[in-house]
Amino acid sequence: MSLSPAPVVVREVGLRDGLQILPRVLPTAHKLEWLRLAHEAGLREIEVGSFVPARLMPQLADTAELVAFAKTLPGCKPSVLVPNLKGAERAIASGAHAMLLPLSASHAHSLANLKRTPDEVVEDLRRIVDLRDAKGSDCLVEVGMSTAFGCTIQGRVEPSEVLRLLKAALDAGIDRIGLADTVGYADPLQVKTLFEQCLAVAGDKLACGHFHDTRGLGSANVFAAWQAGMRRFDACTGGIGGCPHAPGASGNVATEDLAYLFASMGVPTGLDFDRLMALRARVAQWLEGEPLHGAIWRAGLPKTVAA
Amino acid sequence: MSLSPAPVVVREVGLRDGLQILPRVLPTAHKLEWLRLAHEAGLREIEVGSFVPARLMPQLADTAELVAFAKTLPGCKPSVLVPNLKGAERAIASGAHAMLLPLSASHAHSLANLKRTPDEVVEDLRRIVDLRDAKGSDCLVEVGMSTAFGCTIQGRVEPSEVLRLLKAALDAGIDRIGLADTVGYADPLQVKTLFEQCLAVAGDKLACGHFHDTRGLGSANVFAAWQAGMRRFDACTGGIGGCPHAPGASGNVATEDLAYLFASMGVPTGLDFDRLMALRARVAQWLEGEPLHGAIWRAGLPKTVAA
Repeated sequence: MSLSPAPVVVREVGLRDGLQILPRVLPTAHKLEWLRLAHEAGLREIEVGSFVPARLMPQLADTAELVAFAKTLPGCKPSVLVPNLKGAERAIASGAHAMLLPLSASHAHSLANLKRTPDEVVEDLRRIVDLRDAKGSDCLVEVGMSTAFGCTIQGRVEPSEVLRLLKAALDAGIDRIGLADTVGYADPLQVKTLFEQCLAVAGDKLACGHFHDTRGLGSANVFAAWQAGMRRFDACTGGIGGCPHAPGASGNVATEDLAYLFASMGVPTGLDFDRLMALRARVAQWLEGEPLHGAIWRAGLPKTVAA
Repeated sequence: MSLSPAPVVVREVGLRDGLQILPRVLPTAHKLEWLRLAHEAGLREIEVGSFVPARLMPQLADTAELVAFAKTLPGCKPSVLVPNLKGAERAIASGAHAMLLPLSASHAHSLANLKRTPDEVVEDLRRIVDLRDAKGSDCLVEVGMSTAFGCTIQGRVEPSEVLRLLKAALDAGIDRIGLADTVGYADPLQVKTLFEQCLAVAGDKLACGHFHDTRGLGSANVFAAWQAGMRRFDACTGGIGGCPHAPGASGNVATEDLAYLFASMGVPTGLDFDRLMALRARVAQWLEGEPLHGAIWRAGLPKTVAA
């Protein structure tokens, strides 16, 4: 125990996963300040938006501008969600550090959300990797496997199907992949087991845990994935995000809560707690009327954990 | 994995730990209904009150009546908090299943809260065990070691001091002991490590984990203690309780959240989720104006977990 534990990366996804379900459009000036404050708080990986058609998601129409600004911040690695080949072209053109491609482990969720079967989506992954290589781009291709722990439409999702799709995605040539508890169904025992199984197959290409706190198990699930060996997690400032299928439920795990969880365990994240709280306060102003979530903001740090 | 996991006992402590910090006095009739509904929901171990002088804590003045009623419910095992020898006499006379004795691992907390050093409290434990034996009572003597994971007054609490006091309490002849995160300072890595160390010393006499959700880590800490081998946990319906030193912070882990945590992992508790939610709704009525806490009540059970 004399060596410091390995650091953990927290990726801020509030600007995409947090904002996309809100009806309001956050002005670009506020998003730029969000990026600046997040960077000041030590966040380096930031999902800034999505290359979907602006008519479908006007909240995220300024994604290219946000990528360009993020690249001016020292060490900042902006990533973008990409739903298809056309989005991938825009991500490559933007100079984003990584593009995030959704793949549903639930067949029913895949059809409802992406209008394609999981295996059709894997075929798209292959085309996107080929496009990226043909363009000579170094934009990383990262898959986010959604509904990996269960689905509000089909219910149970078999671990064997998660493992099958994980292998298929890796065979398609992607750079890294994460598992997402999109609807807040995961429990920590399931999380630890599935991450261990997937790490045994994917090694360090399994590179993200994405959890929602819908049912109060967000931090427990992050801890369980960390125990399995995961060292990179998504989070949203203020725990925004949520799930349109669970009214009143909280959303993604809060960035400041993960910063506290890891600080409490002595795991370095490079994050500055007070600056995360300042960012949270600004987001609360900008999103006035929207419920924020998370836990540590109420009581603050204990005496035993330094900011 | 073909065998069912070992069952977990959740002890409801809302009637004591939850109510004692509230300024209002809940009428005895409501407490009796709380007991009845808790029993219907499958709770068998219930901390019903405390034998402290009624002038100090009028909220709990009806403790003897609650013990008597709880004993009429099939299989119900009422426990009571006891601060000293006089309280122990009353607990024995009441016929309670167990008396719970606080012992602070933090020297500063012990002086502030109990006006005695931890070692003086251990001497009291010995006298209380002797009294119980002299009376021929089968009332269990259980110690709750508070501030075992840190203290708002002194900050850090050394694990070596927790282990020293654990051994001293066992040497005093107590029946069982639990570790309490009284002020919500614990993190899951610390919890897993300290419970493992204490289990190695105390074996099955280490019989309770008591966690607060002050900083959002309640469920993570319960999971970590469960991983270490703990199979018995305290909880309060609606997550009431809290800590007077952390205004606005939530309180004990919620009974219904623990029921969900263990159900989600396939661990039997004997609890009926819908009836726990019905109890929560009644408590919310009785305590109108007091904030309730917990997480699962908002989103409800997932499709993959049966009530």
